Amino acid sequence: MSLTSKDLVKPAVVQLQAYDPHKRTGHVKLDANEHPCALPATVREAVMRALAEVSINRYPDPKAEGLRRMLANRLGIVPDMLLLGNGSDELVQMVLMACGAPGGAVLTPTPTFSMYRIGALMLDQLPVEVSLTADWRLDLPPMLAAMEGAQPRVTFVATPNNPTANCFDDESVRQLIEAAPGVIVIDEAYHEFSGQTLLPLLQTSPHLIIFRTLSKVWMAGLRVGMLIGNSELVHEIDKVRLPYNLNTYSQVVAEVVLQHWEIIAPEFRMIIRERERLREGLGCIPGITVFPSRANFLLARMAGGGVKVWEALGEQGILVRHFPGSPVLEDCFLITVATPAENELLPSALRASVAARQPLLRT
Amino acid sequence: MSLTSKDLVKPAVVQLQAYDPHKRTGHVKLDANEHPCALPATVREAVMRALAEVSINRYPDPKAEGLRRMLANRLGIVPDMLLLGNGSDELVQMVLMACGAPGGAVLTPTPTFSMYRIGALMLDQLPVEVSLTADWRLDLPPMLAAMEGAQPRVTFVATPNNPTANCFDDESVRQLIEAAPGVIVIDEAYHEFSGQTLLPLLQTSPHLIIFRTLSKVWMAGLRVGMLIGNSELVHEIDKVRLPYNLNTYSQVVAEVVLQHWEIIAPEFRMIIRERERLREGLGCIPGITVFPSRANFLLARMAGGGVKVWEALGEQGILVRHFPGSPVLEDCFLITVATPAENELLPSALRASVAARQPLLRT
Repeated sequence: MSLTSKDLVKPAVVQLQAYDPHKRTGHVKLDANEHPCALPATVREAVMRALAEVSINRYPDPKAEGLRRMLANRLGIVPDMLLLGNGSDELVQMVLMACGAPGGAVLTPTPTFSMYRIGALMLDQLPVEVSLTADWRLDLPPMLAAMEGAQPRVTFVATPNNPTANCFDDESVRQLIEAAPGVIVIDEAYHEFSGQTLLPLLQTSPHLIIFRTLSKVWMAGLRVGMLIGNSELVHEIDKVRLPYNLNTYSQVVAEVVLQHWEIIAPEFRMIIRERERLREGLGCIPGITVFPSRANFLLARMAGGGVKVWEALGEQGILVRHFPGSPVLEDCFLITVATPAENELLPSALRASVAARQPLLRT
Repeated sequence: MSLTSKDLVKPAVVQLQAYDPHKRTGHVKLDANEHPCALPATVREAVMRALAEVSINRYPDPKAEGLRRMLANRLGIVPDMLLLGNGSDELVQMVLMACGAPGGAVLTPTPTFSMYRIGALMLDQLPVEVSLTADWRLDLPPMLAAMEGAQPRVTFVATPNNPTANCFDDESVRQLIEAAPGVIVIDEAYHEFSGQTLLPLLQTSPHLIIFRTLSKVWMAGLRVGMLIGNSELVHEIDKVRLPYNLNTYSQVVAEVVLQHWEIIAPEFRMIIRERERLREGLGCIPGITVFPSRANFLLARMAGGGVKVWEALGEQGILVRHFPGSPVLEDCFLITVATPAENELLPSALRASVAARQPLLRT
C-alpha cells in the first residue's frame, strides 16, 4: 500500500488550519470568555444531588426534551423552535450541512468568530468575507453587494461580535436580514451582556436563525448551544443533528443551573459593571486603546502590541488572547472580564510590562 | 419574504429520513444495546468524588489529553493515534468530512449501522450498499466489484455487525482492507463481546481506521467514541474535529470508570454468558430463529413477526427493536442482552404473545 494521508484526505482538509483553542496554563485565565467563578454553593449542591441520579449506562434523551422545554419557556417560544447543539460549534456545522451546499457561498463580516469560516471550509463551501469598518461597524454596501453577487446560502453575523466586542447597528442588521438570499444566522452568544436581541424578528423572517449559548453564562464545560428558528426550518435542520448529540450529564446539569437562574443572573450584571471598570482602568495606560464592549470581554489595541502584550502578561501568569495571522488584529489583544480581584491585576501588570519592555511602546 | 424551508434547505436534507433512536418508555429496556446495570457502588462513589471537582464555568480540555492518554495506554498505542468523538456518530461524520468528498462513494455492506448511510447523505456523498448473504456473511465478490467500480473514498465495515450481531470472516475483511481504494473503517463497537480486533493491521495499513466506543461498556450516557489510525491520518482528521467536542463531565467520568476497569471488565463476561443462555431459551420457542451473536444483543426472526413481536412485547412493557422499512429485516427483532432477571422475562413473554396472538405465527 502506498496510499498516504494526502491521498486519503480531501485537499480542503489538508490545507485547513484547525481552530486553535489557544490552551495554555496560567493562574489568571482571561483568554476564553468564560465566567470567572465556580458555581455558587447552593447551585453546586443541587447539581451534585442531580448528578447522583444519573444512569450513565443508558443513552441520553435524544431530543433533550426536559432541557429544551425549560429553555424554550425562558425564551418565550415553543420547544419546536429550539434545537440544541454540542456547543454552538456543532450548530454552525448543522446549519452549513442543512442549508449550505458544496461550492455554495457563506457570507460573514470579518474579523469574526473563526468557526464560521472553518466550518464552511470543512464542508467544501466558499467563505466570502467582507471587512468591518476601521471602528468595527458593519460595512453595509459591500455586505449587500456580496449578498447580491455571491448569493450566499448562509450568512453569519455575530452581535455582539467576537472578537471586536461591539454590537452592530440594529438597522444595518435588519437590512442584512431583509436582503439575505438564504438563511441568516444572528449569533447572540453574548446576549446576556448586551441585553439586545432580534428574537422578535423570527415572526416575520422564515429564513432567520438566532444562536444563543450556555457557554458564556457559567456553563462552558457543558457544551450546550441553542439554535432558534421557525419550526419548519428547525425541523429540517434537526435531520442533520446526530441522534444523541447532548450527553446525559450536560442535559441534567444545565436543567439544575437554569432552575437556580435567580441566583445566577445577577452575576452577569457584576460582569457588566466590572467590564466598564476594567475598561476605564486600561484606558488610562498610555498607548492603549480599549474598544467599547457589549460582551464579557474587551478588545484592546497597543501599537506594536498583540504578541508582545500576550508574552509579557503570560510571563506573569496572566493569559489573554492575541490574534496571530490576522493583520487587522495584529496589535490587538482580548481580555475576558473576570473577578474584581483578577481584573485589578491587569492594569498594573500591563503598566509593569510597558515599563520593563520599552520596545513594547517604541516599535 | 416568500422563502420557505424547501428553498432554504438543500434537497438531500429535505429528502433525508433522520436516524430514529426509537425512544419509547417501558420498564424493561432491551432495544438500545446498553449495559443493563447502574455502575457498581464503588465506582459510583469515585465518580461522585471526581464530579465534585469539576468547574463547569471553564471550557473542557480541547484535546481530552488525560482521557486519551489513558485509553491509548490500554490499547497499546501512542495517544497521537487516537481521536475521541462525541460518540462514534461524530467520528463517522468526521471521517466522511475529512476523507470523503461531495459526490464521492461511501461503501457499506447492508444491513448495517444506519449512521454510515445517513452521514453520507448529509454530506452529499453517495452511499453504495452491497447486500450481505442470507446468513449475514460478507458477499466478497460484489464488495470487491463495488470497490473497483465505485472507487469509494470511504468504506465502513462493522464487525460484529449491527444489527446482524455476527463477526465477519477475518479473511474476507482482510481482503477488503487490502483492496480498499480509500480509507476503510472497521467499526469494533462490540469488541468487548467478541474478543476480536484488527488493531495489529494498523502497522501495515495506512488507510485503515478502527472505531471503538465506550457506549456499549457501561458509558452510553457519556458519548465517547474512539477513532484509531496512523498518526499522520489521525492528524488530518483531527482538523475537522470541533475544538471542544467532549464536554468536561464525560472526560472526567470516563477516566474514573477506566481507573476501575478491574471491577467493570468481568461484567462483560456475564453478558456473554447471558447471551448464550438467552439464545438457548429463545431458540426453544417454535417458529423463532435466533442468529449467532458475538455482540451484546441477539437478532431473531419469526415468520410474519418483526412489528408484531415488537407490539406484543411492548404491551408487556418490554422494549425490543424492530426494523420498519427494511425488507430483509422485516421479520426480525433485536434484543439487547440484559440482567439475568430481565432475560428470563423474555422467553415467557414471547410464548405468551405467541399463544395470545395466533396471527403472529399464522401470517
